[in-house]
Amino acid sequence: MTDTVAAATRVSPQRLEAFIARALVAVGISAQEAGNIAELMTRADLNGADGHGVFRLPQYIRRIKGGAVNVKPNIRVEREAAGMALVDGDNGMGHLVMRFATGKAIEKAQTAGVAWVGVKWSNHAGPASLYASMPIAHDMIGLYLAVGNANHLPPWGGIDMLLSTNPIAVGVPAGEEPPIVLDMATTVAAYGKVKTKTQRGEMMPEGWMIDREGRPLTDPRRADEGFLLPIGGYKGYGLALVFGLLAGTLNGAAMGRDVVDFNHDDTTRTNTGHAIVAISLSAFGDVADFKRRVDALVRDIRNSKRLPGVDAIRLPGEQSHAKRAERTTLGIPLPEPLRQSLTQLAAELGIAGP
Amino acid sequence: MTDTVAAATRVSPQRLEAFIARALVAVGISAQEAGNIAELMTRADLNGADGHGVFRLPQYIRRIKGGAVNVKPNIRVEREAAGMALVDGDNGMGHLVMRFATGKAIEKAQTAGVAWVGVKWSNHAGPASLYASMPIAHDMIGLYLAVGNANHLPPWGGIDMLLSTNPIAVGVPAGEEPPIVLDMATTVAAYGKVKTKTQRGEMMPEGWMIDREGRPLTDPRRADEGFLLPIGGYKGYGLALVFGLLAGTLNGAAMGRDVVDFNHDDTTRTNTGHAIVAISLSAFGDVADFKRRVDALVRDIRNSKRLPGVDAIRLPGEQSHAKRAERTTLGIPLPEPLRQSLTQLAAELGIAGP
Repeated sequence: MTDTVAAATRVSPQRLEAFIARALVAVGISAQEAGNIAELMTRADLNGADGHGVFRLPQYIRRIKGGAVNVKPNIRVEREAAGMALVDGDNGMGHLVMRFATGKAIEKAQTAGVAWVGVKWSNHAGPASLYASMPIAHDMIGLYLAVGNANHLPPWGGIDMLLSTNPIAVGVPAGEEPPIVLDMATTVAAYGKVKTKTQRGEMMPEGWMIDREGRPLTDPRRADEGFLLPIGGYKGYGLALVFGLLAGTLNGAAMGRDVVDFNHDDTTRTNTGHAIVAISLSAFGDVADFKRRVDALVRDIRNSKRLPGVDAIRLPGEQSHAKRAERTTLGIPLPEPLRQSLTQLAAELGIAGP
Repeated sequence: MTDTVAAATRVSPQRLEAFIARALVAVGISAQEAGNIAELMTRADLNGADGHGVFRLPQYIRRIKGGAVNVKPNIRVEREAAGMALVDGDNGMGHLVMRFATGKAIEKAQTAGVAWVGVKWSNHAGPASLYASMPIAHDMIGLYLAVGNANHLPPWGGIDMLLSTNPIAVGVPAGEEPPIVLDMATTVAAYGKVKTKTQRGEMMPEGWMIDREGRPLTDPRRADEGFLLPIGGYKGYGLALVFGLLAGTLNGAAMGRDVVDFNHDDTTRTNTGHAIVAISLSAFGDVADFKRRVDALVRDIRNSKRLPGVDAIRLPGEQSHAKRAERTTLGIPLPEPLRQSLTQLAAELGIAGP
């Protein structure tokens, strides 16, 4: 599985991470926190989450410069009980806030068995899979929900965009097999995929978006005239709604009309909400036995007989796992437009480029 | 919203509940437990979950008579920590097991803030919404996951039916508005809807099922030749998989190839797995404030501008709420084939009919 992006140069993960950290330090973030953010952003790129890694750096820097994000946050637990905590991110970078919240969930689940940590006053934190995967190394399942940072989804039958593509991610440890890591938006296509189609001059398939008359919208340049479709129609609308209630409303974070479109706003705080749940395998039974059963299930699925024309059956996270292996060795591809934007960013910040 | 079922007589909820309890007592369940099951099954019918209420009674009785279900279960907590419990249902009726597990989750969440209760050795428990709704009266959010009792879903691209329509349900308290209650299978259509189409002699729309060559399957009488399609393609497959891991594998309950098709088997224990999470609103903040924000969101959604031809925008649970109001007053409709099967069941058991 090699990347087929045309005219992409590759950069080593170490080099990319150092560049991201330099850029964040240049706008006032401490060296240690910049390093933590850079490590997570680079991990996103290694995993193939191209729309959620370094691709977002210019936007993050723009919003920091615009005063929308706090570069010296006091991230703290505001409320706490045995099985939960509520974290106030103090409007810090989402990666820092979620790193803190996930660590807290893992720590609490060591004794409580399961711990649910809600988050308010956070920001965009990159791909959902980053946080759902963190508990895995502690023999825990991770479950992550978030309110997206722009509303592209109306309620089913409506045209007012009151919902985001609120994602869910679940990370499940396996034994000899790679872990299962699901990371998905509740819409048929994430908005980032629409943007990619625009960049490439391609049309979208029917089923991704409709216009305000309910007609299929396939020209991504007209995306502003329509909205994304939820998976399974009213079912995906229901999922986006309840995930938003759990990750946003419950925590006192933005939901519905209060969600700020961070793609078109560099000055307003988003009050992004997340939820991370850590579930300790040992609280429920024998860890090795659980992992054996996951391995057996993974193999049953992979070895299923296939529909005509299907070359392989994949588990959630498998493609990401393969990308990580490839990119760790060969480097992370930077498509030419992205490389140029990063070079320009470096010039603006007076730092060395990637 | 009146029921349009042709040739349906109506029966009062009290009368239906008493009939269900009589039938369960006749096969060896204690009067108290039969009453508890009958109350939940009738609640399912009141809520409009027609495929999950009294409709299932003949099947339940058949399986009890076949020795597949334990009529004198010792339902107990097997493992416990501050934020979780694992319940062994001792192969009792699913309603009893889930009533116990949900009560335990609510009790633990009073102090832990959030409590996750896993369940093994249970059975079919009726509609998911029953249990996700129970925490609402305690000012808690309920989140329910389950492994379905028959595999109708292959992994994406495959044809081996290794997955069920594993459902999710979430119940969220509101203030003046009715609570939000989402209850959905991870397939485009639940299998019960396919059966209904067969009964009515109707064809299915494309997108519900495909055959083993990947072609649309629209004749419900040929359902055995194909399988259900997941919502959002590989996304719904991913959801069915991780919900099954959380509700089944984690708890030592059946998942994948171990799932017993209880529609075609009256003698084998299913080891059905569920998960119920209770999330206390007061642990996260002010309860009245939360409810006000849910009310505001509900009203924003309901008042959204609409697509052409759409008469109303609904919240999850709204139709069920309307059915409950109507059926509480007018009675529960029993379509003629169902009424006949219940009359026949009564004769077999030597009890008065509904």
